[in-house]
Amino acid sequence: VDKVKKFPGLARRATWTVGKEDPRKVVHSLKVGIALTLVSLLYLLEPLFKGIGKNAMWAVMTVVVVMEFTAGATLCKGLNRGLGTLLAGSLAFLIEYVADAPGRIFRAVFIGVAVFMLGAMTTYVRFIPYIKKNYDYGVLIFLLTFNLITVSSYRVDSVWDIARDRIATIAIGCGLCLVMSLLVFPNWSGEDLHNNTISNLEGLASSIEVCVMEYFNDLATPATQDESSEDPIYEGYKAVLDSKASNETLALQASWEPRYSRFCHKIPWHQYARVGAALRHFCYTVVALHGCLQSEIQTPKSICALYKDSCIRVGEEVSKVLRELAKSIRNNHQFSPETLSNNLKEALQDLDNALKSKPQLVLGSRNGRTPNTPVQVVPHQDQKLEEETRTSFSSVKNDSFSSRACKSKEHSRETPKKVLRPQLSKTAIISLEFSEALPFAAFTSLLVEMVAKLDLVMDEVEELGQMAHFREFKDEEIVV
Amino acid sequence: VDKVKKFPGLARRATWTVGKEDPRKVVHSLKVGIALTLVSLLYLLEPLFKGIGKNAMWAVMTVVVVMEFTAGATLCKGLNRGLGTLLAGSLAFLIEYVADAPGRIFRAVFIGVAVFMLGAMTTYVRFIPYIKKNYDYGVLIFLLTFNLITVSSYRVDSVWDIARDRIATIAIGCGLCLVMSLLVFPNWSGEDLHNNTISNLEGLASSIEVCVMEYFNDLATPATQDESSEDPIYEGYKAVLDSKASNETLALQASWEPRYSRFCHKIPWHQYARVGAALRHFCYTVVALHGCLQSEIQTPKSICALYKDSCIRVGEEVSKVLRELAKSIRNNHQFSPETLSNNLKEALQDLDNALKSKPQLVLGSRNGRTPNTPVQVVPHQDQKLEEETRTSFSSVKNDSFSSRACKSKEHSRETPKKVLRPQLSKTAIISLEFSEALPFAAFTSLLVEMVAKLDLVMDEVEELGQMAHFREFKDEEIVV
Repeated sequence: VDKVKKFPGLARRATWTVGKEDPRKVVHSLKVGIALTLVSLLYLLEPLFKGIGKNAMWAVMTVVVVMEFTAGATLCKGLNRGLGTLLAGSLAFLIEYVADAPGRIFRAVFIGVAVFMLGAMTTYVRFIPYIKKNYDYGVLIFLLTFNLITVSSYRVDSVWDIARDRIATIAIGCGLCLVMSLLVFPNWSGEDLHNNTISNLEGLASSIEVCVMEYFNDLATPATQDESSEDPIYEGYKAVLDSKASNETLALQASWEPRYSRFCHKIPWHQYARVGAALRHFCYTVVALHGCLQSEIQTPKSICALYKDSCIRVGEEVSKVLRELAKSIRNNHQFSPETLSNNLKEALQDLDNALKSKPQLVLGSRNGRTPNTPVQVVPHQDQKLEEETRTSFSSVKNDSFSSRACKSKEHSRETPKKVLRPQLSKTAIISLEFSEALPFAAFTSLLVEMVAKLDLVMDEVEELGQMAHFREFKDEEIVV
Repeated sequence: VDKVKKFPGLARRATWTVGKEDPRKVVHSLKVGIALTLVSLLYLLEPLFKGIGKNAMWAVMTVVVVMEFTAGATLCKGLNRGLGTLLAGSLAFLIEYVADAPGRIFRAVFIGVAVFMLGAMTTYVRFIPYIKKNYDYGVLIFLLTFNLITVSSYRVDSVWDIARDRIATIAIGCGLCLVMSLLVFPNWSGEDLHNNTISNLEGLASSIEVCVMEYFNDLATPATQDESSEDPIYEGYKAVLDSKASNETLALQASWEPRYSRFCHKIPWHQYARVGAALRHFCYTVVALHGCLQSEIQTPKSICALYKDSCIRVGEEVSKVLRELAKSIRNNHQFSPETLSNNLKEALQDLDNALKSKPQLVLGSRNGRTPNTPVQVVPHQDQKLEEETRTSFSSVKNDSFSSRACKSKEHSRETPKKVLRPQLSKTAIISLEFSEALPFAAFTSLLVEMVAKLDLVMDEVEELGQMAHFREFKDEEIVV
């Protein structure tokens, strides 16, 4: 009952959100309404109805089915439908011509066999990946039209006339759809793809920035294992992770759109898809970096603080490069790979130097700051490290838990029956606190790894710039 | 010309592959052929045609459009179509009733307005995520049928009869489709989802195994940055990365299927999707682990070899757990979380001990094996490490490159003009060879991280087992 009461509110909010987020959707809805009304006039207006007659239905049907949100999708569907109809029509006439000669029974059998063969064959063809990707709808329409014409040819004599009228009305419907989606407030798949790529780049940039900042500032926050929707890091890269399907669809639709870049070159939409793929691969490293934030063992703050500035600088440089790439795509100008690389390189060098200048700390022996002091016996030193870690832990975890952790460290073999598993496994990880440097090393290593993968993204964007003939950044430097 | 010559061969191979990989697709093609032939009989056989007449066309159309590969998809489409048609029919009659009273012009205007309003509204409604996900096709059919009936009601008087016949024939078409897909060699979306989940688990298991093995055996192989299709590691996890869209579609379709587990409980298909999500999240760590393999700086083999056994053991345990989960899902029995956790915990403890027993090595001071020896001055020690790394590098890279790396280490600031960027950035990374332990630490840390994420996967699978009422593993232990 409660759910029923809430339903109107929920529905209203959901409806409102859609329009607020993307007003183009409202415009598109109105466009469909107008197109349908226009096509209905074929039926409602006396003079038009006289010319076309009942087949006007097919125009209505075509408009309902073909009209899509973006121009590319409509073109793709419309052309597929047109082509499928034409092909099916020709084949159906061929078959009718063959079946025309002998008696009625033979004709029925012949039609039945043809329907079976074509039905099985086209269904099979639709499974072939290439066809499925590009012409799925066309093949479906081919089968539909072929069946309708062949089967009805058995009862009707004037198939020619029917077919001609039907094709004419379908053409009218397709034409109306194309006009509405290409000329009246058009939505371009290519534009969506372009904007998605830019916002993905920027989302990743802010993800990395926040991630690095949080690592050094909030080490004490408890590990949150589920991604709450408010987590800005997750928000930033979430869209990238799920971008595969939408990117590929948009690239495919955009390739049908008659849009050109400067100098009448075709815009290389598939290259956008490749940039997306490189970005996705880059993103996996960001996810791993985010994982460092959430992991249950952490290097003590005192150690991290020493490298804070260098790490943050690398993170910032990476973000800056991503933003620069986004800007480059947005403004259609090429970027200067040298400048970006140099900055990155300097930041890396900086981190390098920082780690080199205080290596004892990375190596975990905090008492080695005066280099000539003999290092203490190793077990003892280790013990010390452990103790410190335990302190840093018990500040976070509740008491019962940290006492569990201590117990398991003293190798008290207790039988693990009736113990909840999550706790068990946490214990296992915490008892690994042998080297506090490990998580920090992983963090740093992932940062470096990220720079390496960023290179691939830069390559793809650079290639995109060349293929799309972006304005050159500096004429004398970029020519390759 | 060459492409045209090759085309028949390519086409033949593509066609052949589809059938070979999944013979069910051949069967499905034949099923569609049979269904179409059967429905054509409505038209071809004299007695049937007399009863139904021209509207038999609608049955043909329904079969072509509704028949899908799996039972769930067909049910979803068929029910959507049926519901949409019924609703649209009722609404159309309501509108006709209202429009019936006044004159002809008014009626035309009224119909036009109704078409516009309904067209815009339904198109808008289709953008709402919930509707789009569940009822997109139904709303489309609603709009289609509504338009066809309303518009044709303007010219035809016996709309009731037309509508009745049409609904009857559509019902025949839907019924035939359902019979064919539910009773004749049915393909179940749920089964696909089940199998995909199992094969994803197993693919990840072998990925991890190979990945850990390769890390310790083939450190000398040059870094391959593009994923060749033969890479067994990439092969293993590729399917998991891209599983989001297909998993969600399958779960949705499966939820329409009338299948039940033991004791007539509904199978919780959405829980399979959640297992898939946890698995995908787990997979990002595997990708990062794979990245360690491909990264350009590597810890010298001599160091890694010391921890080889422990690391491999952890990797094997993780694989074993994944295989165990796959087995549990395949055989519909619950697994014993305690046993699996204990093994994992032991492996982690083992790695822990290994790292503790030779901590000097992880910490990078190779001469600290006898703990009481005073450690040498740090800069010197660092120098030594660097020298070794350089040696291990020059064995892999070509000479000119390694000389570049040396140069940049001597801080010779050369102007970076005319240097290709990829090389530049590689240099930057290689000049980071300050701490050889870093990549290995990252590798180990990711292994540990992986165990933590595996926990989430185990939780989801355990919940799946409870929701689907899998056979219990040991009665006295699992009851929660």
